[in-house]
Amino acid sequence: MRVLGIDPGLTRCGMGVVDGSLGRPLSMVDVGVLRTSSDLPVWERLVSIEKGIDAWIEEHRPDAVAIERIFARSNVSTIMGTAQASGLAMVCAARRGIPVALHTPSEVKAAVSGNGRADKQQVTAMVTRILRLPTPPKPADAADALALAITHQWRGGAQNRIEAAVAAAAGKVRR
Amino acid sequence: MRVLGIDPGLTRCGMGVVDGSLGRPLSMVDVGVLRTSSDLPVWERLVSIEKGIDAWIEEHRPDAVAIERIFARSNVSTIMGTAQASGLAMVCAARRGIPVALHTPSEVKAAVSGNGRADKQQVTAMVTRILRLPTPPKPADAADALALAITHQWRGGAQNRIEAAVAAAAGKVRR
Repeated sequence: MRVLGIDPGLTRCGMGVVDGSLGRPLSMVDVGVLRTSSDLPVWERLVSIEKGIDAWIEEHRPDAVAIERIFARSNVSTIMGTAQASGLAMVCAARRGIPVALHTPSEVKAAVSGNGRADKQQVTAMVTRILRLPTPPKPADAADALALAITHQWRGGAQNRIEAAVAAAAGKVRR
Repeated sequence: MRVLGIDPGLTRCGMGVVDGSLGRPLSMVDVGVLRTSSDLPVWERLVSIEKGIDAWIEEHRPDAVAIERIFARSNVSTIMGTAQASGLAMVCAARRGIPVALHTPSEVKAAVSGNGRADKQQVTAMVTRILRLPTPPKPADAADALALAITHQWRGGAQNRIEAAVAAAAGKVRR
């Protein structure tokens, strides 16, 4: 299963692709950040982010897209742009029929580090170790996107396998 | 000039199209509301809203799209969906090269009623009178979308004519 993790944002939108298969360690396929200039009107920034996300989906053909769940109580000064970028990320995946999953920051921190209150450094360190990367991914948004993809591999991936097994068993019963 | 006004929202997204030309009263072309069910995942609701907005743009070919400017301090329970719907509305227009304008609720209230703190009833009454409608547009989201389009006709329209005149004058000077 290939998961595209997206840490949404208008100024920096983290993107990370992680492959996983049963019995093998997870592996990083690609990582990066979409950037837009705050000098541009917000709609031009959003169009640019949409194009960037579309290009990543076209190139990597993920089986699922994992996006950070945004809360209204987050940083007020950036919340509108973050919400809009996350909405676009959802739409880019959903209109292609790619399953979307939202994971909260504490779910992601708990999944990769065992601690729902881990700081950015700890998350980056664990992402580096889990994916056996030669150097830590930078900036933090890129590491967060990989952490989202890892979380979905472990949480959503297991869930998907259970559902697939149940569906297969149901299929056998029906025959 | 034809303006599509959009009052963004996940549950109800108000849509209103108003035509204007110099020296003639404004006229309503179409009004309605895009609705999505709160039973659906947010990404399916957003895809549905995107399709709806695209269809309105295709049908009415507006020269500009006027969208309500959202503030982070608005109603917290619905702010995320409203922000995401407004981002989508901007993208639907901007990727076609249609000019986007954001107007605050108090700009809209002041434009249609002369009072930046007018209530919903007053806005609806003024929209009904300005567009000479036989009955008030309902629900409030639909009236708000028409009020946005009217505001843009009066504010943005004048601004656009000034810019066009300046550009034309500059063109003459260059020759």
